[in-house]
Amino acid sequence: MYTVYQEPLVSRYTSREMQYLFSEEKKFTTWRKCWLALAEAQYELGLTDLISVEMLDEMRANLDNIDYRLAQEKEREIRHDVMAHVFEFGTKCPRAEGIIHLGATSQFVVCNTDLMIQKEAMQLIRNGLLTVISQLASFCERYKALPTLGYTHYQPAQPTTVGKRNTLYLQDVLLDLKSLDRFVTDMAARGAKGTVGTQATFLELFQGDHDKVRKLDELVARKLGFTGTLPVTGQTYSRKLDIKLIEVLAGIGATAHKFAVDLRLLSNLKVQEEPFAEKQTGSSAMAYKRNPMRSERMTGLARKLMGLCADFYATYANQWFERTLDDSAIRRMDIPQAFLLTDAILKLFVNISANMVVYPNQINKHLEAELPFMTTEKILMEAVARGCSRQEMHEIIKEHSVAAGYVVKQEARDNDLLERLAADDRIPLNRSELDRLTGDYAQFTGRAARQTEEYLQEHVYPLLAQNKDSLVMIDAELSV
Amino acid sequence: MYTVYQEPLVSRYTSREMQYLFSEEKKFTTWRKCWLALAEAQYELGLTDLISVEMLDEMRANLDNIDYRLAQEKEREIRHDVMAHVFEFGTKCPRAEGIIHLGATSQFVVCNTDLMIQKEAMQLIRNGLLTVISQLASFCERYKALPTLGYTHYQPAQPTTVGKRNTLYLQDVLLDLKSLDRFVTDMAARGAKGTVGTQATFLELFQGDHDKVRKLDELVARKLGFTGTLPVTGQTYSRKLDIKLIEVLAGIGATAHKFAVDLRLLSNLKVQEEPFAEKQTGSSAMAYKRNPMRSERMTGLARKLMGLCADFYATYANQWFERTLDDSAIRRMDIPQAFLLTDAILKLFVNISANMVVYPNQINKHLEAELPFMTTEKILMEAVARGCSRQEMHEIIKEHSVAAGYVVKQEARDNDLLERLAADDRIPLNRSELDRLTGDYAQFTGRAARQTEEYLQEHVYPLLAQNKDSLVMIDAELSV
Amino acid sequence: MYTVYQEPLVSRYTSREMQYLFSEEKKFTTWRKCWLALAEAQYELGLTDLISVEMLDEMRANLDNIDYRLAQEKEREIRHDVMAHVFEFGTKCPRAEGIIHLGATSQFVVCNTDLMIQKEAMQLIRNGLLTVISQLASFCERYKALPTLGYTHYQPAQPTTVGKRNTLYLQDVLLDLKSLDRFVTDMAARGAKGTVGTQATFLELFQGDHDKVRKLDELVARKLGFTGTLPVTGQTYSRKLDIKLIEVLAGIGATAHKFAVDLRLLSNLKVQEEPFAEKQTGSSAMAYKRNPMRSERMTGLARKLMGLCADFYATYANQWFERTLDDSAIRRMDIPQAFLLTDAILKLFVNISANMVVYPNQINKHLEAELPFMTTEKILMEAVARGCSRQEMHEIIKEHSVAAGYVVKQEARDNDLLERLAADDRIPLNRSELDRLTGDYAQFTGRAARQTEEYLQEHVYPLLAQNKDSLVMIDAELSV
Amino acid sequence: MYTVYQEPLVSRYTSREMQYLFSEEKKFTTWRKCWLALAEAQYELGLTDLISVEMLDEMRANLDNIDYRLAQEKEREIRHDVMAHVFEFGTKCPRAEGIIHLGATSQFVVCNTDLMIQKEAMQLIRNGLLTVISQLASFCERYKALPTLGYTHYQPAQPTTVGKRNTLYLQDVLLDLKSLDRFVTDMAARGAKGTVGTQATFLELFQGDHDKVRKLDELVARKLGFTGTLPVTGQTYSRKLDIKLIEVLAGIGATAHKFAVDLRLLSNLKVQEEPFAEKQTGSSAMAYKRNPMRSERMTGLARKLMGLCADFYATYANQWFERTLDDSAIRRMDIPQAFLLTDAILKLFVNISANMVVYPNQINKHLEAELPFMTTEKILMEAVARGCSRQEMHEIIKEHSVAAGYVVKQEARDNDLLERLAADDRIPLNRSELDRLTGDYAQFTGRAARQTEEYLQEHVYPLLAQNKDSLVMIDAELSV
Repeated sequence: MYTVYQEPLVSRYTSREMQYLFSEEKKFTTWRKCWLALAEAQYELGLTDLISVEMLDEMRANLDNIDYRLAQEKEREIRHDVMAHVFEFGTKCPRAEGIIHLGATSQFVVCNTDLMIQKEAMQLIRNGLLTVISQLASFCERYKALPTLGYTHYQPAQPTTVGKRNTLYLQDVLLDLKSLDRFVTDMAARGAKGTVGTQATFLELFQGDHDKVRKLDELVARKLGFTGTLPVTGQTYSRKLDIKLIEVLAGIGATAHKFAVDLRLLSNLKVQEEPFAEKQTGSSAMAYKRNPMRSERMTGLARKLMGLCADFYATYANQWFERTLDDSAIRRMDIPQAFLLTDAILKLFVNISANMVVYPNQINKHLEAELPFMTTEKILMEAVARGCSRQEMHEIIKEHSVAAGYVVKQEARDNDLLERLAADDRIPLNRSELDRLTGDYAQFTGRAARQTEEYLQEHVYPLLAQNKDSLVMIDAELSV
Repeated sequence: MYTVYQEPLVSRYTSREMQYLFSEEKKFTTWRKCWLALAEAQYELGLTDLISVEMLDEMRANLDNIDYRLAQEKEREIRHDVMAHVFEFGTKCPRAEGIIHLGATSQFVVCNTDLMIQKEAMQLIRNGLLTVISQLASFCERYKALPTLGYTHYQPAQPTTVGKRNTLYLQDVLLDLKSLDRFVTDMAARGAKGTVGTQATFLELFQGDHDKVRKLDELVARKLGFTGTLPVTGQTYSRKLDIKLIEVLAGIGATAHKFAVDLRLLSNLKVQEEPFAEKQTGSSAMAYKRNPMRSERMTGLARKLMGLCADFYATYANQWFERTLDDSAIRRMDIPQAFLLTDAILKLFVNISANMVVYPNQINKHLEAELPFMTTEKILMEAVARGCSRQEMHEIIKEHSVAAGYVVKQEARDNDLLERLAADDRIPLNRSELDRLTGDYAQFTGRAARQTEEYLQEHVYPLLAQNKDSLVMIDAELSV
Repeated sequence: MYTVYQEPLVSRYTSREMQYLFSEEKKFTTWRKCWLALAEAQYELGLTDLISVEMLDEMRANLDNIDYRLAQEKEREIRHDVMAHVFEFGTKCPRAEGIIHLGATSQFVVCNTDLMIQKEAMQLIRNGLLTVISQLASFCERYKALPTLGYTHYQPAQPTTVGKRNTLYLQDVLLDLKSLDRFVTDMAARGAKGTVGTQATFLELFQGDHDKVRKLDELVARKLGFTGTLPVTGQTYSRKLDIKLIEVLAGIGATAHKFAVDLRLLSNLKVQEEPFAEKQTGSSAMAYKRNPMRSERMTGLARKLMGLCADFYATYANQWFERTLDDSAIRRMDIPQAFLLTDAILKLFVNISANMVVYPNQINKHLEAELPFMTTEKILMEAVARGCSRQEMHEIIKEHSVAAGYVVKQEARDNDLLERLAADDRIPLNRSELDRLTGDYAQFTGRAARQTEEYLQEHVYPLLAQNKDSLVMIDAELSV
Repeated sequence: MYTVYQEPLVSRYTSREMQYLFSEEKKFTTWRKCWLALAEAQYELGLTDLISVEMLDEMRANLDNIDYRLAQEKEREIRHDVMAHVFEFGTKCPRAEGIIHLGATSQFVVCNTDLMIQKEAMQLIRNGLLTVISQLASFCERYKALPTLGYTHYQPAQPTTVGKRNTLYLQDVLLDLKSLDRFVTDMAARGAKGTVGTQATFLELFQGDHDKVRKLDELVARKLGFTGTLPVTGQTYSRKLDIKLIEVLAGIGATAHKFAVDLRLLSNLKVQEEPFAEKQTGSSAMAYKRNPMRSERMTGLARKLMGLCADFYATYANQWFERTLDDSAIRRMDIPQAFLLTDAILKLFVNISANMVVYPNQINKHLEAELPFMTTEKILMEAVARGCSRQEMHEIIKEHSVAAGYVVKQEARDNDLLERLAADDRIPLNRSELDRLTGDYAQFTGRAARQTEEYLQEHVYPLLAQNKDSLVMIDAELSV
């Protein structure tokens, strides 16, 4: 263990549940479920001369009973994993041995299993998203009316509220959930399609009865938990569906990246911060530092997740005809990695969004420093309302603002913008009028608080209410 | 013109319609529509002391009346394109001059215009997809029953039919159309949200009346042709929506790439080919060649289109707070490029799918050469049906197949597989039985023809019927 | 012009020089140079019965004499650009008509021209890099000793100097120059290799004389300005070389991106800023803002440039055999785009690095605010020097630092760390000793100033001296 | 083990040697080497009051003596891996405990160790490349004169030779080796640079003696096996160097991808094939198939490897200031993955290139089928030589070629081109002259054989000779 590379996604970042979904055990037991579903469906559709109830019972009784060593030995010998497991399953089911995998091609178990595992994995991801949504919603609610500097170009702009800013992340998470739900709703089994998708061997088994073969396909799909089966396939399901899959996951990565980068900037500004564990060491040399390590890790994981997209496009776009195997090794790595990365990201996202820290006094300090500048928009509006040309006022105010900005930057002194404006005759407002325009900060935040409320009431709470039963609490214990 | 780089997307590959959508004229006239919609909505919601019917009429009369030179001069002076066009519009609308862009920020026109153009561009793309679907469907119908070699690993596998293979592409195009339709359905205006999305200036204009400001946002959206407005925004709409956009377009690219690569391989196999223009020169040196240049070009264009995805992820994921401007130059290039590439690809796709050539005699030749091998699956099934072990038969047949394969490859002679099998006592079939198993090719294609019919009847024709009014014929004239 | 999409790279961001290199004129006149070089070399190597001095003179006299309309007409007719220009050149050179392109394939002119243009374009890029290096070096020199906060995790860390920080960018630009120089040094002509690279037609022309054909290849290469010719090629030069090309350019993009992002953060911190034009409008609504628009644009352009890499990998990796044409459309776009993007980035880089602004008073303010924290490293060292356990001291100091940090963040008050430490008996330093440790800021910057000097003296100045003749001043006039 | 995701790179594809280089043991023992080197250098440069020979001996004796459980416990407690190992090493070195990591920051061990491991890993990769070069060279030598169809557009073109075609891959592998050698030659240690790269703590340790601190940096570098140290760094070495690293590895991936795709096409053409293991099962259903599974796997692995590039660009381009930690998780995954993927690819490449199969009789069959077409180039040349217009002959021959092509494709009959040409009076050659032009195939291959010889003699053999001592035979045993 210490002498071999350990994939950090497993050793460090992800949940047991997700790790299990991409384990050998999960895969091989699901293969057996596929074989059982096929045999059951074949039996139900009339192949009773080939398949007996006893065989089905035997198979059913041995779904989890796998001798991995034996399977591996066989695989080394024949260099074919599916046939090796057919063989091993056969040793457990001496009666059924001859009818396991009947009429099927390897991709019958491989593709259907892939899809079943993806479906379960999406459910885990969905739980994570719901938890994040729920927590971010509470945060937005709590801070909906707290004014804070807005930023454009990462330069101070009009104020917004802490809650309102966080609805932007929240809205993007909701988009991710919507994508995920669409993906899951669209899912269909690869079903029983045969070597190149023509169902030729099944048609022979059912002696030319098209209806029965079609029913077989659908019945197997239903038995495996799908509402439908893909209309047409080659040997595998279209790898275009894998692009859809990575879109869902990379979409979550993108949202997480935007959120984490903002949080790292906010952390520098001492405005909003991730939680910090008591024993966590800032760095070996600088004990006092409160490094946003969760957000930094989230950034890196999200970058890698987004980076996987290109693989999926290329794999689909270069599949030849009914199937080539250049998709095998890469999907074997990329699909688990994509889910594990998303899992790791959501663990962090849940952990962070549960206990984000806000520093109202620091926020005020920022507002005070930029307030005189911020008033310019209102002054401009007022001047225009009093009949001045927008264009001209814009220029005059800009001139004074730039001057005041230089004072701040060059001399590191407090800004004197209001004094300057009051002293300029071209501006139709005196000092006391200017002061009146810069009262409490909330007046600068427009509808931010109200928008936050509306967004939560109209979009988020109904969604959470709808999903309240499925909202499973996520263990977001981290090893930072 | 000859002394400056010409973007090939414009000079060579795309339609006039799409080129126009990303022209200056389209942009700036749409900006004016935004300003008009804003003023109208402000008027309708009660700002009648500021805005008059005459002003609106004036604006309405000058939507297309742009003095580009004047606007450019102003822009060079103030280095701000939106303010330059506010100014230029003002020269045409002396009455309205003071209320153009009232309470708005640049992104009011920029974002809404972006979305409006995207919507129109998606309509052009949709036309292209429908044409491709319609043409591919005809092709599938026509060749639904023509047996042809299937390929896995790009090695001969069970036969399928020409039509069935092409349903695989068709199904992927349908997925693209579904994505596009979802994207368009989900579209909402950026609306009237203000500098950092708080609607602060609008709230002031409406003296604190939240309802009116909310209605303003919705009214503007409706006037601009959207059914709704985004619940919350920063200064711009979330660049996450741009990711959705590129997913739709790159998805089309991916489908086109898979199709084009297969067609290039089929062309080598002399099975299925793109149309070939009479005057087209194969190459300077080899006159006889029928190079699949359309498919090759399609491959390259699609590669570039897929390659754009990463930009959109990175742009969104690295947007800071309410907005940073590192999205500007890249979106200005990437969004037009993405649409233009898709347009170019669809022109090719329409052109190719209209007149694909099939070579039945060559197809037969391939089937004959591989037929003895192909029968092994049936022989295996039959032998199992007669009580042999699947595993054992598999081994025996493999042994003979490999031997026959060597004869073919090493000696470039016809294969002798059936002779070999007939001579092997372990196999419970004699030569005449073997021959009977290898009758007409259609028997090997399973449900391929039937699947094609079902897929067309159940999925494609209903879709085309539903859209028959919007199916505009695409001009797919190419300069190859 | 207003009704068709205009590529912003051309209309907005790039230099005339670079735009010209990828123009039709540049391409077609270079093709003619290739044809001339070929004919000259063929003549010199003995094909005097086919080629005469008069023919060469005729060709030489018409290198720039192109009737574009005629060539286009011919191309529309025969759909082959090279043959169209052979034809058009022939109309200008009636004597030479029969021997233009003798024994050559289209890629003879296309590949060699590509390489020649790339070489010239690299020279432009090189000039830009040298200018940036020169300017950044001056900046580093000037600010080599100005202490400023260092940042790790974007949290205050030990101080460094403004000059030292900027050597990090400088060093990366030097790496880019090194890559570029290697690329150019490695360049070799595609030469005269024939349709699939076998030189078959040339061997025939020279009646089986291998030596002469080899010399032809080398002679053409030399005439076209290359020191050598590629040993083996297919129809084209290996597209692997295009990967090398994009590595050079995208490497510059990456450096520019890192620099620009840092500068945008520094701009928020009011530490270091890009220059700001007088007439530049901050934004329509906020006149006072000093938006780092150059750096933002640079970020976006660099992102796009880096995003092109994947295309080049995919194009090479999917080239089949001696050549497929799926490289044509994409290279026609990607290679000019890559150079134009780099050109645009360097214009910005030159413009910014020429006049960067530094705010020493703001820098001091930052240092003062973090100084007490910063001293902890020194206190730790001192305490260890006095015999305390590093581990234990680390813990104690951390505890107080976190407490002081909370005071700063939670109460937005000045930090009280030194008081706290002085009051703690476990720490073997009293207040006056602590104060002595926190003297002038330069003491915290270690070897930063000295490193800067050394780096400039040992690495940068020698390089600039070596290149002082080729350091052409770049026009970095921008339209922001 | 069966219940947790197993990274396939480790469980299936890679060598023990490479897996070990990225193991915990390798990492932590290398950290200790860094600590030892630092202490030795500090001692040698005069810190003899702090550091004793006994301490160094103690450290030297315990380089491999790691209690992993203890370190992990400590890490869980203090959440800092480097400090945990400082602690654990201290328990083994009670005397040295206080001076381990003296003056250093975590990245002292982390960065230097990264670089040391990269260097060793590059050596393994280099061995693989040399083996591939050696084997491909033998293959080229052997088949240098065997004529085979060349392909452009994946359509038959002029013949080349099997050996010549394979020099194209060989040349690209040589480019990869050159890149690798440059990377390794350029490598320098991160050395002893301190928290933000200023060497502040070291300068204090050496009481302001700049020379000694500079020597410390260089001495540590030399002790760790580097010829030099990076001139300037932030907290870490510039992540730009990681881009150089992935360029080397992804370059190998690109070459492997191009090679593998071609081989898969050649396999379909029955021209050139990967070796095939005796017991390998083609597929569960089709026993006879000779699926190019190695090349397919290579394609997929190479795709993933190339896909990693974008991560490295983004990580560097988004590093803020002296360092942010968003590089940590992603580098922890991407760097091992990049090396492991390259290792896996080279195992396949070595395995395949050792025993590639060629089918001369099939090759002849292809030549025969296309020969009449192929002669057109020669006929064109001959006709031009006899005074015909190149343009006109081109058109006439094209016309007949297209007609003959239709006969072949439409009727699947042998082509009749020569008959057609002989019968056309405009062509100044009769049938016997035409026949003479189409003699033995070698005449069509121009200088292919000679080029192959020259390339091997002048470029490959000297390289192999130079490296003959370092050419270690690679174990390319595969589990396919």
